[in-house]
Amino acid sequence: MTSIQRIIDRLIEPAREFGSTTDVLVKGSATLNVEGIVIAFMLTQEVLEKAISLKANLIITHEGPFYSHQNWKEAYSKDPIFLAKLQLIEEANISIFRFHDYFHRYDPDGIMVGLIRKLEWEKYTEEYQSTATTLTIPKQSVTEIAKYIKDKLGAPFVRVVGDLSMDCQRIGLLAGYRGGGELVIPLFQNQSLDLVIAGEGPEWESPEYVRDAIHQGKKKALILIGHAVSEEPGMEYLKVLIEAGFPHIPVYYIKEKPLFHIL
Amino acid sequence: MTSIQRIIDRLIEPAREFGSTTDVLVKGSATLNVEGIVIAFMLTQEVLEKAISLKANLIITHEGPFYSHQNWKEAYSKDPIFLAKLQLIEEANISIFRFHDYFHRYDPDGIMVGLIRKLEWEKYTEEYQSTATTLTIPKQSVTEIAKYIKDKLGAPFVRVVGDLSMDCQRIGLLAGYRGGGELVIPLFQNQSLDLVIAGEGPEWESPEYVRDAIHQGKKKALILIGHAVSEEPGMEYLKVLIEAGFPHIPVYYIKEKPLFHIL
Repeated sequence: MTSIQRIIDRLIEPAREFGSTTDVLVKGSATLNVEGIVIAFMLTQEVLEKAISLKANLIITHEGPFYSHQNWKEAYSKDPIFLAKLQLIEEANISIFRFHDYFHRYDPDGIMVGLIRKLEWEKYTEEYQSTATTLTIPKQSVTEIAKYIKDKLGAPFVRVVGDLSMDCQRIGLLAGYRGGGELVIPLFQNQSLDLVIAGEGPEWESPEYVRDAIHQGKKKALILIGHAVSEEPGMEYLKVLIEAGFPHIPVYYIKEKPLFHIL
Repeated sequence: MTSIQRIIDRLIEPAREFGSTTDVLVKGSATLNVEGIVIAFMLTQEVLEKAISLKANLIITHEGPFYSHQNWKEAYSKDPIFLAKLQLIEEANISIFRFHDYFHRYDPDGIMVGLIRKLEWEKYTEEYQSTATTLTIPKQSVTEIAKYIKDKLGAPFVRVVGDLSMDCQRIGLLAGYRGGGELVIPLFQNQSLDLVIAGEGPEWESPEYVRDAIHQGKKKALILIGHAVSEEPGMEYLKVLIEAGFPHIPVYYIKEKPLFHIL
């Protein structure tokens, strides 16, 4: 028998220590025996239904299941969509472990390792910082890089600021909600980057900085690939890690469909 | 002679009172005589250069000129792009007034009034709340509404979650960075909305809520039109207000090019 707590202990063990965390057993009991594990970037309604049909009794989700960085939000406690999802979780007696902060605090960041593996850019990495990774790639245009990323990550689109024909070599890569100015602007300067590739961030920060840089004649570009797109490969990689430690437990990674249509 | 302070007083006067604000004279002197006014969603490098060539000596900007909700950010004080922009502002001896919080606190929100005017949806508005407006429009599909918005606002794209063929009548409209779950999720429920149209917000909040709602068989949709796209019409509308009060002063509204390419 392998308890949920044993899985959690194994997941947490490689992380650098730190204070408060969102990473708790959101639902369920740590003493239960694990029958099967479903891993997802986010426990959506569809992932939940698939987990039930796969007879998994533990779901590991990177983002909270209820549309907030916090796992529970009192303001949504009477919302019918929240309630229907919660009811199904409880009826299925399924346990949910939020695995966000600890995975980001692996050394290097587990989400980043998965992203770089998926991009097949391991050979180009220079430095893994705590919130970003720098790479030097063979010279390619912004358009070529955007197409490569879309292909490797299965993204239907990316949002780009900059001259699409500009050649890039020095890249900063940031997963998730790390596309804001506080991280991206110093990174551009301190690392002499041509291009930053990030998940998401406020539109009036890094994108407007890059727009101004270009207007000043400096060669910079930004590709926003989407939050889920940037973190899914990390959760897919987690499947490999868990299977290595617990080969007798069925482990499934479920990738959601793309979130947005572009019109 | 019309001092900058007289313009500021007139701008602030209609706003409901409130505490702290970003809305200050970021650069310049309130006692100067106003020669010309440039209005923009955001004082970009290009807007700055155009303002100088138009011989305007007051720029009114909704977002801060330096890539942050705060007007000044110590962390960027040695950044070369920040410094080049600041140097040009100082050489041109141009004054900058940030006009964000007060305009949002007009009754109704001045940014929202401009957006609804630009969409020609005045006749459909039902209720102006402090952060959102509800409307009932003639029945149209999500695709039809998205195309209409793109056309009216000059947006090259919008991001959509939902069934594109779904008919919508009850709409919630939120400008700027008000697309987060805390505002959007209660609005959907309290106002029985089919569709929310917002500027921007975190991708794992409202978009994932709408994805789940659809999977549960509930008819909901979300259109994210972009932060600048949603607030530019409000700043364009401000031109009309200022011209009415100060007909002798040249007033220019400058619309930036679209921020993102979609690849």
